[in-house]
Amino acid sequence: MEKKLKEEKGITAEKDEFSEWFSQIMLKADLADYTSVSGAIVFRPGSYVLWEKIKEETDKRFKKLGIKNCYFPLFIPEKTLNKEKEHIAGFSPEVAWVTHAGNTKLNERLAIRPTSETIMYESYSKWIRSWRDLPLKLNQWNNVVRWEFKHAVPFLRTREFLWNEGHTVYASKEEAEAEKDQIIGIYKEICEEFLALPSLIGRKSDKEKFAGAEYTISMEFYMPNGKCIQGPDFHHDGQKFAKAYDIKFLNKDGKEEYAYQNTFAITTRMLGVMFAIHSDSKGLILPPKIAQNKVVIVPIIFEDSKTSVLKKAKELAGILKEFDPIVDERENYNAGFKFNEWELKGIPLRIEIGPKDIKEDKVMLVRRDNGKKESVKLKDLKQKVEEELEDIQKCLFNKAEKLLKENIIKVKNLKEIGETIKNKKIAFAPLCGDESCEGDLKTGTLGVKVLNVPEKQPSELEKSKCSICAKKADYFAYIGKSY
Amino acid sequence: MEKKLKEEKGITAEKDEFSEWFSQIMLKADLADYTSVSGAIVFRPGSYVLWEKIKEETDKRFKKLGIKNCYFPLFIPEKTLNKEKEHIAGFSPEVAWVTHAGNTKLNERLAIRPTSETIMYESYSKWIRSWRDLPLKLNQWNNVVRWEFKHAVPFLRTREFLWNEGHTVYASKEEAEAEKDQIIGIYKEICEEFLALPSLIGRKSDKEKFAGAEYTISMEFYMPNGKCIQGPDFHHDGQKFAKAYDIKFLNKDGKEEYAYQNTFAITTRMLGVMFAIHSDSKGLILPPKIAQNKVVIVPIIFEDSKTSVLKKAKELAGILKEFDPIVDERENYNAGFKFNEWELKGIPLRIEIGPKDIKEDKVMLVRRDNGKKESVKLKDLKQKVEEELEDIQKCLFNKAEKLLKENIIKVKNLKEIGETIKNKKIAFAPLCGDESCEGDLKTGTLGVKVLNVPEKQPSELEKSKCSICAKKADYFAYIGKSY
Repeated sequence: MEKKLKEEKGITAEKDEFSEWFSQIMLKADLADYTSVSGAIVFRPGSYVLWEKIKEETDKRFKKLGIKNCYFPLFIPEKTLNKEKEHIAGFSPEVAWVTHAGNTKLNERLAIRPTSETIMYESYSKWIRSWRDLPLKLNQWNNVVRWEFKHAVPFLRTREFLWNEGHTVYASKEEAEAEKDQIIGIYKEICEEFLALPSLIGRKSDKEKFAGAEYTISMEFYMPNGKCIQGPDFHHDGQKFAKAYDIKFLNKDGKEEYAYQNTFAITTRMLGVMFAIHSDSKGLILPPKIAQNKVVIVPIIFEDSKTSVLKKAKELAGILKEFDPIVDERENYNAGFKFNEWELKGIPLRIEIGPKDIKEDKVMLVRRDNGKKESVKLKDLKQKVEEELEDIQKCLFNKAEKLLKENIIKVKNLKEIGETIKNKKIAFAPLCGDESCEGDLKTGTLGVKVLNVPEKQPSELEKSKCSICAKKADYFAYIGKSY
Repeated sequence: MEKKLKEEKGITAEKDEFSEWFSQIMLKADLADYTSVSGAIVFRPGSYVLWEKIKEETDKRFKKLGIKNCYFPLFIPEKTLNKEKEHIAGFSPEVAWVTHAGNTKLNERLAIRPTSETIMYESYSKWIRSWRDLPLKLNQWNNVVRWEFKHAVPFLRTREFLWNEGHTVYASKEEAEAEKDQIIGIYKEICEEFLALPSLIGRKSDKEKFAGAEYTISMEFYMPNGKCIQGPDFHHDGQKFAKAYDIKFLNKDGKEEYAYQNTFAITTRMLGVMFAIHSDSKGLILPPKIAQNKVVIVPIIFEDSKTSVLKKAKELAGILKEFDPIVDERENYNAGFKFNEWELKGIPLRIEIGPKDIKEDKVMLVRRDNGKKESVKLKDLKQKVEEELEDIQKCLFNKAEKLLKENIIKVKNLKEIGETIKNKKIAFAPLCGDESCEGDLKTGTLGVKVLNVPEKQPSELEKSKCSICAKKADYFAYIGKSY
């Protein structure tokens, strides 16, 4: 049985066969499962608990900024959705439509929200009257639907996903734009310190910005298959939605003005990015700060010493309580099988304890990230666990950061961009900012696009020419293959 | 301006004009708002924060029982929904159907989940193989849609609402049924200790039980308009869904058996019940344990003492930090206006502080629930606030309990039932348990039905006859007009 179980349960693909490897980890580590709804997945407890942690930490920081949570309807009447032209053009190909309720055909089709600007801003228009009502800072944690026709990948691209959508309104452009660094700062902290994920932060090109925004700041991540994927983002909408949805206020001089707006989001996609970047051919690797159970204790059981070993294992669990340890007492599985299973599920640290260890007042401590084993005296255990967890967190971030940096290549023409992308790397190239040059880039090489433009630009920008048209360059941009 | 604002903002209906009064409180206390989606509402921050508290407290208790959170798709394919006949018959008249995505017509219609049994149990069928996989205890906090055609009332009856749906699976009927008291115990604690709401707890009649359940335990609440409304419930499904969705396991003897299941829920409806039962003609009254801001400090400002009064008000806010006090520093409104506004919004305690109070080292403390005013020495303030908040919590519960008890009338025939209902009370009457008798009850008096049957039965049951057919009674049941 054991052998069969191992075959069923173990990962049989290497990380460089990315799709197969990723899909196996999702299913075998009990993170996600497919359902009879094509393109939608189950978030099993093993992944959902990580999303709850992201929510909790993000929400705490939002609340410190005075952002309040609320809930708007799932449905958006077609008429409401259609008011802002760029916005609807961006979303309408992916909208799921409700047309019937029970046996009744509805008078007007209802969209399932792909995002909530349109339904929220109708209310904002009613609620906001004077400068005293501003700023208005609301947020939702909810589910949205975008009917992608591409192949679904758990967490990375599914037809329904979970996210936060922040929607704030200010009396002036300056105040609105000042929120950018606050919000991006929060998302950066969540990604770097909890998920151990470095990113490229910058402004989207006009071509790639959010439908309806003045500009978009995005965080882009480099995946093990050489593709890039967009994470959290922040959109400054200027007065565009305010004009479409009539969000006006009386300013302190008694004059009517349109308000300034921002929106921002982090989604469950980040779980998939984290799973993909850190894990290996043994299975999931979780950064300790996001993992619920940071330690698993596996008692090494022989018939004659069973009672004392189990007792000691539970005693250790008590000492290590703050790390939420699992004690694997199961009787029908041997230690080797248990080691494999917890490695598959990504528990950061394993503690092995057997009769010999008890005699010598020590345990074996094994790291999930690098497999390093160390014998640790019981009296040092708690401190050692704490240190190792911190070190794992740091190592995972450093490894991901090294990978990202090594894969950015500074280039200066279309040929070099093409070669870089072919080698599954990110090109950092000068562009003139003209949409037609960006278009050439996209048509030339399948799926290639400008990821974003970092604020800090290289010193050689001044002397650089556009990689496409050879006119003077406006900026260096990250360019990559994208999800 | 002030007068106009007051008219706009104050409640102009008395509690006995229930619909108008309730609707005004919802809108004017910023709890809910209507949207362009008929039958769906916005949960504004003032109400959503209360739902977050209910979630947090319930979830904490679920986790202690080993229940884990997860997330299943919003969509359910028509074929999947149709597998359990009683279940689909119960829900199909209210299902919202997605038929198109973008410009593409879907091959199969997708239901928006009215509840998730059907989509979850397909997965359960895959996941559960042996007794080792049991119990499986999962829960979701999500949104569901039931397309009611009756008039919508914020929180009490809307087409979309938020809830928890617990779905547990056990190897034996005994284990499954043992969960009943645990779950009902949790819901009772949340309702009584946080929402200050007493209820009638009992078993639903077969006619009124959940579509697909073996039996349903419900909590019923008595509303100020004399109608009753169902709150949290627990359903024991026996093996009904297990048979429809093929949820089988190998037991310890190696034999295949169908599993036993339960489901349970608390919904955002409870917010509406709480708002309706406690509030008055001045506006919202919130039980302190659920209120976010338990205290509001209103500085009484005169030009010459403004600085010192504001300074003192902030100092008090520091001392009372654990009660999350609001300091109302707004300049354009006088104290009376502020008093009205915070009464409207239901803050449990108000502290008034002016220059005279400062000189005498005291403040005025005013209770929202009964309007009682008391001058309190500063040195006693924190303790006094704590005591008063506790007392308000208790008083609100006692008042609601008194109202409930006074409105239950023990009767023994159809005529008396009719009179009781006409007087907007709850009848407690003996019934034989025959569905046709229960049917007579329903057709006889519009909207009247059996609420539930309490476990503890009156001693005269043995000698009692059915109020309808005069055969021997099986139980006394609560009967009322219901939402």
